[in-house]
This record gives sequence, structure tokens and C-alpha cells, in this order.
Amino acid sequence: MKLFKSVAIVGVGMIGGSLALDIKKHKLAQRVVGFSRNRKTITLAKKRGVIDAGSTDLSVISKADCIILAAPVEVIISLGRRLAGIVRKDALIIDVGSTKQEIVAALEKVVPCFVGSHPLAGSEKRGIDNVKRGLFENSVCVVTPTENTDDQSLAKAIRFWNSVGASTICLSPLEHDTIMSLTSHLPHAVAFALIRSIPEEYFELSAGSLRDTTRIAASDEEVWADIFISNQKQLVAALGEFEKNCNILKNIVRRKDKKRLVSFLAEAKRKRTALV
Amino acid sequence: MKLFKSVAIVGVGMIGGSLALDIKKHKLAQRVVGFSRNRKTITLAKKRGVIDAGSTDLSVISKADCIILAAPVEVIISLGRRLAGIVRKDALIIDVGSTKQEIVAALEKVVPCFVGSHPLAGSEKRGIDNVKRGLFENSVCVVTPTENTDDQSLAKAIRFWNSVGASTICLSPLEHDTIMSLTSHLPHAVAFALIRSIPEEYFELSAGSLRDTTRIAASDEEVWADIFISNQKQLVAALGEFEKNCNILKNIVRRKDKKRLVSFLAEAKRKRTALV
Repeated sequence: MKLFKSVAIVGVGMIGGSLALDIKKHKLAQRVVGFSRNRKTITLAKKRGVIDAGSTDLSVISKADCIILAAPVEVIISLGRRLAGIVRKDALIIDVGSTKQEIVAALEKVVPCFVGSHPLAGSEKRGIDNVKRGLFENSVCVVTPTENTDDQSLAKAIRFWNSVGASTICLSPLEHDTIMSLTSHLPHAVAFALIRSIPEEYFELSAGSLRDTTRIAASDEEVWADIFISNQKQLVAALGEFEKNCNILKNIVRRKDKKRLVSFLAEAKRKRTALV
Repeated sequence: MKLFKSVAIVGVGMIGGSLALDIKKHKLAQRVVGFSRNRKTITLAKKRGVIDAGSTDLSVISKADCIILAAPVEVIISLGRRLAGIVRKDALIIDVGSTKQEIVAALEKVVPCFVGSHPLAGSEKRGIDNVKRGLFENSVCVVTPTENTDDQSLAKAIRFWNSVGASTICLSPLEHDTIMSLTSHLPHAVAFALIRSIPEEYFELSAGSLRDTTRIAASDEEVWADIFISNQKQLVAALGEFEKNCNILKNIVRRKDKKRLVSFLAEAKRKRTALV
């Protein structure tokens, strides 16, 4: 079902490029154009059939009736602020940023039909080399309307996410950022701090436990610096909560209190088993 | 190549049962017998061809010329203390415990041919249902001789681990426990504390990052309580080191110091990328 005539992807990386592939696969638009700051990305994206046309000039998006901002948080905000003079007034603008309060506050001021979104898909990888058809199949996408969000745009954005296989949940930007500070930003912060705590010369004596707990520490530093800073308040609170649990555990271990230790670990195990 | 006439596995769980399968596969012994405190485990292990014979009576191991203690740390120590009156004087005794100082100190007093070992293989699962042929293929096994270890026993233990596909590294029990407190016990402690910090009602809004960082929080609470307590001093130090890195990160985020944040995360990414 065609939802749009022409979709413009701003940032043809793993998320933007995978969305482009799914838009073509599900025939959601007649045409998909791409913008990237990097000429090589545009050349590759065209060559691999990810986009029909593309440019390093933002004016390439001017005719699109749907624009998807798929870049790190700070880039979404800075590019978003330049949209007003370029895009069609009736164009639906969606972003895929990992935090929502700053982006939504900035963008709903400059474009009339903006809907904040955050698809919970992807991995520690990024870039055009990691695009994947069907990436959003069976995933969840959080959509973050506010009192300023236009009903029709919201409905269209939800229909779009459903069309690429994602179910949607609506939350306020603050609710989104609070939950994500715990379920996503905290695990990343912990993984970064954890790998920094292990001397490299001990790596050969590690097994799956260290590899799995730190996999996401290989994530891009620029992307995650943006996420952490744009969600500073919630992340600091989440780290505080985590610190409390670390201290409880450390004190139990220090006292060799086996009974309390078993019960601390058993409750963790019960919760982890509930996380499917 | 037959290394032994009869091997006795004390604790026919994931590690002990998998070793039994590999001993048969590589024909390292004529006979494999098993001890378990649980009658059902013995019945299952026999039925599935993991062991040739078994019993819930420890005397089943009396004729073996190699005994493998494959139980949680505290059980290895308490069963180990009962071995003196039961086993052949020339029997090689190997354990697979996850910490080494307490076990080695206790067992080398009671049996003459003891060699502490720790194969870095396995997962958060346990029990006879999770045995796996070839579990030790391409893994590393730490062997922890002391000045009291008999040369011939050490050589035999190393040959045994090599025969099931593991390469071996010799470390002192203290070196082993120090390294493991960082590469294994700390990731487990972090995973347990992390999952306890996330409200369960937020689980549906999580993705691979939370799942991977907390996978090992589903590990057995009794096993890990033993490991943490028997390596208390090193684990508390490892948690202290990790806490320092968490605090550095928290303070950088609090100050929104993007430059330092990018460099903190980039160094973490570099290290994680070096961990293959």
C-alpha cells in the first residue's frame, strides 16, 4: 500500500538504509531519496539499490512528502532546525532518535507535521554496510506525540511503522527517556565502564560472560555521547539506582552473608528469566 | 589414547557430564562412573549413555584412577575432604571449581595427587540436561599447581585437558582468582545488579542491549554465591575498580562534557574491539 509519493531518508546508515529497503520491499512509496553528509555513502546506497537517488545537498529532500531523520541525536536536532525553509509544509517528518525530549522540543517548533519515534531495533553496528531488510519485523517502535502533534500525522506515522513490521507504543517524550535510561542507556553505560575495568592482558582468560556483557561497548562513541548527554538527568538517576544495587551486593559479599547473597542472586535470576 | 582405566565424575552436571561424554568420545578411559547426590541424575546419566555406572554413594569412586570433582565450590571442598578414606592413593584428583585458592588449599592437604583446574567453558545453564559433547573444544583450561603439586600428576592433568580439546595455562591459585574476579566474577556481579535495577514493567521496552548484558544473571544462585564468597577479597576489589569507572562516567555525563565523554567511550570501544 502506497503511503507516500516520495520518502526522503536523512542519514543513510543502518537504521535509515534498512528503512529505505523496507519501504521499497513493502512498496510504501514510489520513490526513496537519500541525504548523507558523506558522498561515498550516497554512491554506495545508490549502487546497492538502497535509494533511488541521493545527494550531499539537503535540498534533495524538498519534494518528499515524508522525511525520515535517521542520524545521531545532535545531528537530528541540527539538521531538523534547517528543515523549515526546505521541506513541503504538508510533509510528514519522522525521526528515529534514541532520546526524545530534546529532539521533540526542538523539531515541533520548526515543522508543522512532526512525529517523534524511536524504533527499538539495530545493534552496536552502524553505517550503510550494516543495513538489513526486515530489521523492524516484530520489533517495537515507541512513538512520542505531544499536545502539539497533529492527529493525522500521528496516525500516518503509526501506519508507517506498522507497515515495516513494528508494533507501536505511544509514550510522552519524558516517559520514553525515563524508561530508555534504564532499559537501554544504563546497560550501555555499564558495558562501557565494565570493559574499561578489565586489564587487556587478562582478555585471553575470559569466556562468554565478559563477551556478552560488554558486546555493546563496541558501539559508536559519537552516537552514544549524544544519547547520554541528551538524556543526562535520567541517565544519572539510573546510574544512581544501579550503584545502590552494586553497593548492596558488595556489602553482602564483604560480610560473606551467604543467605542474603543467595536471595539477592535468586531474585536477579527470577527477573532475568522473566525477560524473554 | 587411554589415559586412565576408570574415571569417576563427582557431580554429573553440565561440566561433569560433558567431560564424561568427551572421555568416551576420545576413548580416554575404559570406564566412566558417576556420583551424584541426586538419584534421578544418576538414572538419567546412565540412560543417556553419559556414564557407564553410577551411585548416590561416594564409594562408587573407590576404584577409579582419575577422579574429577565437578560441583559448586563449597561442595567440591566438602566432598573433597571425605576423599582420603575412599580413593586409591595413586588416583589423580582434578577439580573444575570456578575459584581456586580455597579449594587447592583444602584438597592438597587430604589427597596426594591433586591438581586444581578451571575449564573456561559452559554457560549460565547447569545440570545433566545441558551436557554437550565437545564443550571444551578450543577452550582454555587454567591449571593451578603449587609447590606441593606432584610433577607426574600435573603432567597427566594437562594431558587430560588437552585430550578433550582445551589448551592449558598454568597460574598460581591467587593469580587465577585475581584474574577471574575481573574477567568472570565481576561481569556476573554486574549482570545481577543491573537486572535488579530495571523495573520489570519496562521489560517490554527493551532490546538486545539489556538481554545480552544480563544473560548471565540467569545463572544459578547457589553456584554463584559460593564463587563470590570463596573469592570475596578479589571480587570486592574488582567491584571497587568498576565503581571507580562508573563514577568517572557519571561525572562526565553530569557535566555534559562531550569531549571527555567521547574519549571515554572511544577507549571502551577500542578495548571491546580487541576482545575477540
